Amino acid sequence: MVKISILYPNTPGARFDFAYYADTHMPRSIELLSAHPGFKGVSVERGVGGATPGSAPAYLAMCHFHFSTADDFLQAFMPHAPELQGDMPNYTDIEPIVQINEVLISR
Amino acid sequence: MVKISILYPNTPGARFDFAYYADTHMPRSIELLSAHPGFKGVSVERGVGGATPGSAPAYLAMCHFHFSTADDFLQAFMPHAPELQGDMPNYTDIEPIVQINEVLISR
Repeated sequence: MVKISILYPNTPGARFDFAYYADTHMPRSIELLSAHPGFKGVSVERGVGGATPGSAPAYLAMCHFHFSTADDFLQAFMPHAPELQGDMPNYTDIEPIVQINEVLISR
Repeated sequence: MVKISILYPNTPGARFDFAYYADTHMPRSIELLSAHPGFKGVSVERGVGGATPGSAPAYLAMCHFHFSTADDFLQAFMPHAPELQGDMPNYTDIEPIVQINEVLISR
């Protein structure tokens, strides 16, 4: 299994509309991507703190899509890339870090 | 639910022994932390690429612990912190980014 992680750095002065992200953008993303048979799950998270008490999180938000293979993700995502990427300015001006991971242990 | 994310930056020249991490360090971590009733799951991953084909991942490895609350994680982790943190030099010289997240959507 692979996991596609989309990480939004906690950039000083950046804009991030959590209500729009969690209530509109992500539900629409999940609706579109979960239609592919390779879709295995998703997690959407808000950073609340760093390692030491009271410290800021490195990332404001994270989203992780689980797919059977990286090709499955690309097949699911590419047809909807214009809509989903075009929606990003509606909630943030942060450029996210995107990474593909191989899942070694999951339980 | 909360997720504690431990991210190992892909630092040039850094050392990371994946065999030791995945076969020894993480199984021992999971054995110790999963004994707490607040433990809800774990995922261990290896970064394989970035957003563009052939690009390097931002993180060599990620580990995510799911717990009912952040306090549950601390109660589970603190008694074993000396052993687990003391084991880190056995697989890496990278200082990980640690972050606590509130899980908004999980399916």
